[in-house]
Amino acid sequence: MQAKTPSESATITTDIVLPGETNPLNNLFGGELLARMDRAASISARRHTRRVCVTASVNNVAFNNAIPLGSVVTLEAKVSRTFKTSLEIFIDVWIEDRESGNRLKANEAIYTFVAVDERGKPVEIPPIIPETEIEKQRFEAALRRKQLSLVLAGKMKPDEATELKALFS
Amino acid sequence: MQAKTPSESATITTDIVLPGETNPLNNLFGGELLARMDRAASISARRHTRRVCVTASVNNVAFNNAIPLGSVVTLEAKVSRTFKTSLEIFIDVWIEDRESGNRLKANEAIYTFVAVDERGKPVEIPPIIPETEIEKQRFEAALRRKQLSLVLAGKMKPDEATELKALFS
Amino acid sequence: MQAKTPSESATITTDIVLPGETNPLNNLFGGELLARMDRAASISARRHTRRVCVTASVNNVAFNNAIPLGSVVTLEAKVSRTFKTSLEIFIDVWIEDRESGNRLKANEAIYTFVAVDERGKPVEIPPIIPETEIEKQRFEAALRRKQLSLVLAGKMKPDEATELKALFS
Amino acid sequence: MQAKTPSESATITTDIVLPGETNPLNNLFGGELLARMDRAASISARRHTRRVCVTASVNNVAFNNAIPLGSVVTLEAKVSRTFKTSLEIFIDVWIEDRESGNRLKANEAIYTFVAVDERGKPVEIPPIIPETEIEKQRFEAALRRKQLSLVLAGKMKPDEATELKALFS
Amino acid sequence: MQAKTPSESATITTDIVLPGETNPLNNLFGGELLARMDRAASISARRHTRRVCVTASVNNVAFNNAIPLGSVVTLEAKVSRTFKTSLEIFIDVWIEDRESGNRLKANEAIYTFVAVDERGKPVEIPPIIPETEIEKQRFEAALRRKQLSLVLAGKMKPDEATELKALFS
Amino acid sequence: MQAKTPSESATITTDIVLPGETNPLNNLFGGELLARMDRAASISARRHTRRVCVTASVNNVAFNNAIPLGSVVTLEAKVSRTFKTSLEIFIDVWIEDRESGNRLKANEAIYTFVAVDERGKPVEIPPIIPETEIEKQRFEAALRRKQLSLVLAGKMKPDEATELKALFS
Repeated sequence: MQAKTPSESATITTDIVLPGETNPLNNLFGGELLARMDRAASISARRHTRRVCVTASVNNVAFNNAIPLGSVVTLEAKVSRTFKTSLEIFIDVWIEDRESGNRLKANEAIYTFVAVDERGKPVEIPPIIPETEIEKQRFEAALRRKQLSLVLAGKMKPDEATELKALFS
Repeated sequence: MQAKTPSESATITTDIVLPGETNPLNNLFGGELLARMDRAASISARRHTRRVCVTASVNNVAFNNAIPLGSVVTLEAKVSRTFKTSLEIFIDVWIEDRESGNRLKANEAIYTFVAVDERGKPVEIPPIIPETEIEKQRFEAALRRKQLSLVLAGKMKPDEATELKALFS
Repeated sequence: MQAKTPSESATITTDIVLPGETNPLNNLFGGELLARMDRAASISARRHTRRVCVTASVNNVAFNNAIPLGSVVTLEAKVSRTFKTSLEIFIDVWIEDRESGNRLKANEAIYTFVAVDERGKPVEIPPIIPETEIEKQRFEAALRRKQLSLVLAGKMKPDEATELKALFS
Repeated sequence: MQAKTPSESATITTDIVLPGETNPLNNLFGGELLARMDRAASISARRHTRRVCVTASVNNVAFNNAIPLGSVVTLEAKVSRTFKTSLEIFIDVWIEDRESGNRLKANEAIYTFVAVDERGKPVEIPPIIPETEIEKQRFEAALRRKQLSLVLAGKMKPDEATELKALFS
Repeated sequence: MQAKTPSESATITTDIVLPGETNPLNNLFGGELLARMDRAASISARRHTRRVCVTASVNNVAFNNAIPLGSVVTLEAKVSRTFKTSLEIFIDVWIEDRESGNRLKANEAIYTFVAVDERGKPVEIPPIIPETEIEKQRFEAALRRKQLSLVLAGKMKPDEATELKALFS
Repeated sequence: MQAKTPSESATITTDIVLPGETNPLNNLFGGELLARMDRAASISARRHTRRVCVTASVNNVAFNNAIPLGSVVTLEAKVSRTFKTSLEIFIDVWIEDRESGNRLKANEAIYTFVAVDERGKPVEIPPIIPETEIEKQRFEAALRRKQLSLVLAGKMKPDEATELKALFS
């Protein structure tokens, strides 16, 4: 299968925060943001694989900055690494200052999807070739995350997690 | 006020069609599409004006192609023309073929917004400078649309609608 | 096919504005109103045609008055003119003063629908016979709007738009 | 306070059933219908009292007929009886046959509201004068229902429930 | 069929009140609460019967206490009595004091469901055996409610309503 | 501050999957599940701390089993470990077999919350004392997860992550 670059399946989505989507503190409700990121990430996964993709896991979401009512929110979802039938998507969340228009990084998240055929069976997907500096860093880190989740799930022995061993010893 | 180009406030939003957003024919419900276009257009208006912008009118929405359940839908909203305190936004709606990834134009729409201050009073906005060929065409056509809506509302005499007179005589 | 009057398919819908349906200014969110009008208009189209009707275009929506949180909103949708397989629906939007109960006109909109059979093919529909004075005015104006949209879409030569020529020359 | 008739505050609302509002049997989800009836009834209560009205109880809702996906549903809410600070609203629910347009009674429900001032304290409301035969029947029956709910809640002795005693002895 | 106890199908659901679910007084919107109770009650009905259950009626809902924005709301749904093919569900609604954690009873409601087979035909269901004191009281009262609704619907003569006659004579 | 046990703030919520909450494969939409888990977890955090708690991160969500339309879904949220001002919540997701009533583990997730005062400043929270075997295991593992996230975020040197070093060397 022919390799692709992250920019070929990058997905941008911009939206506002309406009162019906806030928590009692008048910020974007966390669950709503998780749902929006899932939608954006699943589109990026589908664009890369041209397959139905189902959410396999949400590995890491950091809510660093609250997103107030009325904010303009931009989500950018990009494939960070592919495995045999699964792929990791990195989502960056930005908000804009209303006056200056400057963008502020509000959150980031990592979702993993599996590509499936009509009967729900995992299918092989095209590899990814990172291009920019940050794409390359995230590509590298994805392997450590993969090993970690395998180790923590008891599906890989710590000894075999070569990337992690290098980090901790 | 300093003029800006349409690309400076262009707004892209990509989303999927879930079952809860369809009509009984299993296509995207028209009202839901109108709402999504309103959200995208209002962000573009705000980015251009750096002001709160309220929807003034929806001038023309053509639903040429139904958008089936599960589609990836991309909305692109761009300022087509500014007036003293109002601005016209053009929204193009695209869907993607799942296999080939090719984009198909599904709909287009024109929304008008007014920029207001804290008390809801209209305020002056920066002018727009169209750059591409299609931006220039839409800029020109916007004046005819403006005159038309004034004539139809009885706020301009047909005689004064110079752009339209030229068209029909 | 037997002609019908607008009152036979008139559709009234009354609802309130809850916090989850507002914009950041605490007025009814424009997209939500567009969706409600689409629902009301599609019912009127179906009652006239006894067919499935799909939104073809939204020709003109004027947001003259903001609709505050907690308002009682009444939408009245009526067939203004029929063509061979399509029909134009006029929607008037009213809000009520809480103290006096007086009605204030807040918005109006014009939607066009096409009647289709089971395979989505346009089908012929019954003609409309306007009765009241305002129904007759809107019936007349609908022809001008139809010609306008054909001219602007390049599907009719300005010379053939007899109704419009009379207006501008 | 000046008495009013039920027709002065009658509230009609017509809507369709979209896929996002159904239960797993593809009929209108019961909870969604309860919510729509609450909205219609609260408008009728407000129109009669010109006050904020809060739901006090739902006395009787009979789901006699399922309402399938795609149905046109009409709710008619009318004041059936007023008490000192509360009022009972009767809601009739109709669906239309798509071919013939004939209306079929699908459900009915009785909601009770209390009118309150700005601090949430109950306030006196205008009396109702039933006009039609069915309005009069419902007006009579409302007293029996009121006594019943007081007896069942232990706030009235069965002996004092004159309307009910007459029925059962 | 083997009898079951109420605790075997008891259903607890805990949720918060977000801004998108409130009425204009910033309390949980009545219609939203009715919908949540319907969901909880239908789960309890299904657990008892292991059948699809459809809402047959809402007999009595008392909104004694408003539920403010941000509240933690707990719904407890339990079978109170079974009949041949239908069953009555009692729902208690509690809110928690944020500081002390103490629970306050906010509302209660009674829903009736019918168990159906694949073709929507009512099917026989297992009997219930109340255990606690309150379960026994509600079991007894359910018969009176059943007779009442039959009498009020004209399907039982007051003379035959033995439980009610005893109460009022 | 007085320590508490996980059972004191355990939160159970049971709900069904309606058509408006599914993805195009007719399973519960991943984003909707993430939102429901966020709501349940935030209630558990609040019950333990008696404070407003905001989502700080979503550390690990594994979507092992799809949740089909019509399923009864139970979420159980429990505090797994407290730190100075933050706490980790473990959420187990179960679905029930309709015929047998047997429960099947569908997903699990770990969310982290921070307790804040009225000005949004983090505040100290009561410690947790795990009781059952699984509570103790999750309590232990939480420290490894904490160190991991600090190491991966560059806020802790791998050398200082004593729990992890033990694992990998």
